[in-house]
Amino acid sequence: MQNVLTMEKLVALAKTRGFVYPGSDIYGGLANSWDYGPLGTALKKNIIDAWWKRFVTSRRDMVGIDAAVIMNPKVWEASGHLTEFTDPLVECKKCHTRYRADQIDVSAACAHCGTRGEFTESKNFNLMFKTFLGSTEDATSLAYLRGELAQAMFVDFPLVLQSSRKRIPFGIAQVGKCFRNEITPGNFIFRTREFNLMEFEYFIHPSEWEKHFEYWLQEMKAWLKFLGVAEDHLVFHEIPDGERAHYSNRTVDIEYQYPFGVKELYGLAYRGDFDLKNHMDKTGKDLRYTDSASGEKYLPHVIEPTFGIDRSVLVTMLEAYHEEQAPTTEEGETDLRVVMKLPKELAPFKVAVLPLSKKEELVSVALKIVDDLSTRFAVDYDETQSIGKRYRRQDEIGTPYCVTVDFDTLTDQAVTVRDRDTMKQDRVAISDLCAYLSGHLPTL
Amino acid sequence: MQNVLTMEKLVALAKTRGFVYPGSDIYGGLANSWDYGPLGTALKKNIIDAWWKRFVTSRRDMVGIDAAVIMNPKVWEASGHLTEFTDPLVECKKCHTRYRADQIDVSAACAHCGTRGEFTESKNFNLMFKTFLGSTEDATSLAYLRGELAQAMFVDFPLVLQSSRKRIPFGIAQVGKCFRNEITPGNFIFRTREFNLMEFEYFIHPSEWEKHFEYWLQEMKAWLKFLGVAEDHLVFHEIPDGERAHYSNRTVDIEYQYPFGVKELYGLAYRGDFDLKNHMDKTGKDLRYTDSASGEKYLPHVIEPTFGIDRSVLVTMLEAYHEEQAPTTEEGETDLRVVMKLPKELAPFKVAVLPLSKKEELVSVALKIVDDLSTRFAVDYDETQSIGKRYRRQDEIGTPYCVTVDFDTLTDQAVTVRDRDTMKQDRVAISDLCAYLSGHLPTL
Repeated sequence: MQNVLTMEKLVALAKTRGFVYPGSDIYGGLANSWDYGPLGTALKKNIIDAWWKRFVTSRRDMVGIDAAVIMNPKVWEASGHLTEFTDPLVECKKCHTRYRADQIDVSAACAHCGTRGEFTESKNFNLMFKTFLGSTEDATSLAYLRGELAQAMFVDFPLVLQSSRKRIPFGIAQVGKCFRNEITPGNFIFRTREFNLMEFEYFIHPSEWEKHFEYWLQEMKAWLKFLGVAEDHLVFHEIPDGERAHYSNRTVDIEYQYPFGVKELYGLAYRGDFDLKNHMDKTGKDLRYTDSASGEKYLPHVIEPTFGIDRSVLVTMLEAYHEEQAPTTEEGETDLRVVMKLPKELAPFKVAVLPLSKKEELVSVALKIVDDLSTRFAVDYDETQSIGKRYRRQDEIGTPYCVTVDFDTLTDQAVTVRDRDTMKQDRVAISDLCAYLSGHLPTL
Repeated sequence: MQNVLTMEKLVALAKTRGFVYPGSDIYGGLANSWDYGPLGTALKKNIIDAWWKRFVTSRRDMVGIDAAVIMNPKVWEASGHLTEFTDPLVECKKCHTRYRADQIDVSAACAHCGTRGEFTESKNFNLMFKTFLGSTEDATSLAYLRGELAQAMFVDFPLVLQSSRKRIPFGIAQVGKCFRNEITPGNFIFRTREFNLMEFEYFIHPSEWEKHFEYWLQEMKAWLKFLGVAEDHLVFHEIPDGERAHYSNRTVDIEYQYPFGVKELYGLAYRGDFDLKNHMDKTGKDLRYTDSASGEKYLPHVIEPTFGIDRSVLVTMLEAYHEEQAPTTEEGETDLRVVMKLPKELAPFKVAVLPLSKKEELVSVALKIVDDLSTRFAVDYDETQSIGKRYRRQDEIGTPYCVTVDFDTLTDQAVTVRDRDTMKQDRVAISDLCAYLSGHLPTL
């Protein structure tokens, strides 16, 4: 994969096929803003749904919440975000381009105007987006867009505990959008100012943190395997003593070998009781947990696995992308075959139905099949261009099965089912088609 | 329903049971901010997933997008939001409480301090939340949080058209969060400053608008029926000439009889070509559509059905809430039975598994059943308190089936399945349980 796939290729395919568009495109865009198109929306939703089913609905030790983006500003004061959630900012004195001081060599030349080493002193730039609630714009109405999901799980912890009757160990999960005023966003959907996270805070007894940490590390690996990520594209970066936050005994950054370098993908952090303690101190509310068996009263510690959604979409696409020397088509084309070998569960469409020609008798059979399958699977329908071109298009968007209605169909009541990965074709009776596909595919 | 259910009751149940919590609660809250708890998150997700399957995945004429919250500010300039998206604001001269001028009698007494008729002149207050992108806070970095979903469907229209190969008529759907700096939010999750919408823009030939409008009105009615909303709680309010936007030939506000009055729930608007025309004028991009059969080139018109998600959750809960005189329990309790008769597809848990006692031999059988069912259904498990109390709790959260493991189970390998609505109980062999429930319930 790394040999053939550049970000330029992926960004172009993403736009052409409708995975990801530049945001506000007809207005010349908005720097580093992206919109998910029809296929990207489906892929992203399939990833989120699979995650939610795997880690929340099918587990007894996890519940979900969905909290407001704008919280009481005191939350961010207590969590340290208003003072600590910063990046070091420098600016070229000549052209005023801004950089993250930790990402450039400040003795080198400005990448924008070429001036050498003329940068301002580094200053801490806070990443929280500000806004104002109500009709006055002053300190009393100042509010922030959440920079992470985690604080809501801590702030709502007592309410969740009371209403859900969960016992420790258990987790509170959340999926949602966060906002960070990044100095240097970039690399497609890798780093954007608004981004989507899936995350949970897993509340444990302090004595058991190592066991739970190890468990969740393995679960994250298994999830990445489910997304189709090859293990040798991953780097499990143990953050050494001195570089971790002071309250954390262990943090692992899960990094990925992107075309633009090895950079972060997910994170797993042991946060101790840092957050609950802060909120307990600031609010005076007793956030301790009482073990009903032992009677012990304690502040739970927390293991925090964080899964970036946009990065999940990105690595899933990077891993799925394959170029193969394609067999010559009936039309004599010998191009490379680009095929997105997406996990079937995640493919935007599970099946494409293709009448061999636009002739009414084929189209009507094909549309009947679409209607029958659509109650169970996400189905695409395409009657344009040659069948070879349509196969290539479905390959590019990762559709696992193409069902072709041809002239023989009118006599044998059967269709050709083509497998995306092997390109093998089976002849299947229309009456068996739904069962055939159900045997190979997850249902809607 | 209207006789017994007050908002106070619903808000209390929502908090106690974990449907909806006050936002930032341990910090004293944040005015009119709410967080979905575990059950509300599940209910909301089930509503969204059902909507998405019904209107997007299972239809050939609909595609989804998921666009950025922060768009190029020129979008909001073109759409008129920066000048027109306002509410009339008045302020009490005495206590400075602010009101929407169209919601109060300005000759009456201030509801806060009681001063009579001492309000400022009404001024237009813009509802768009502002923020700043990047490290300077001035006009060049000013940006807005989207106040509606619709503009992204118009701005991305040419990219969707090109990448999806859809032909008119077709729709672009979106689910997401919007932000409005409301002067007087309130009534629980009815009106909040951040809120969730499901919406699509359905692009049509101008000559066919009446047919499509009528079709989507019927579809919205069918959807409301699916949510369990009684038709006589709805008001279909045809907006008369002179009150509609100038570009609209027909708008229907779908209103609902809330405990606090008849107020808006959904909306259906015929927007003509107003939006695409604005964006075409402002960008100079040709946004017209060419009919491949007739060759006609035209600006599509648009029918816009808007479904508020938080209001969907609210009315689903209001309609589901029932109080019944319950039969006396084994423990002699004769309270009212509160039961949420949620549509089974939407219930947060489909099944609750309840061991009759905490005895190890019952618990182990019960947990085995939970594990078996959890791959197919959202399952709750509860071993606390008396079985009667547990039934009542499951009734209150709308779980369609309770599976009780009792001492007979150890000999007959069967369990009791209790129906939420009829309270009838069936004895079902454990080996048949999954099939029994699958026959009565939608799967995960």
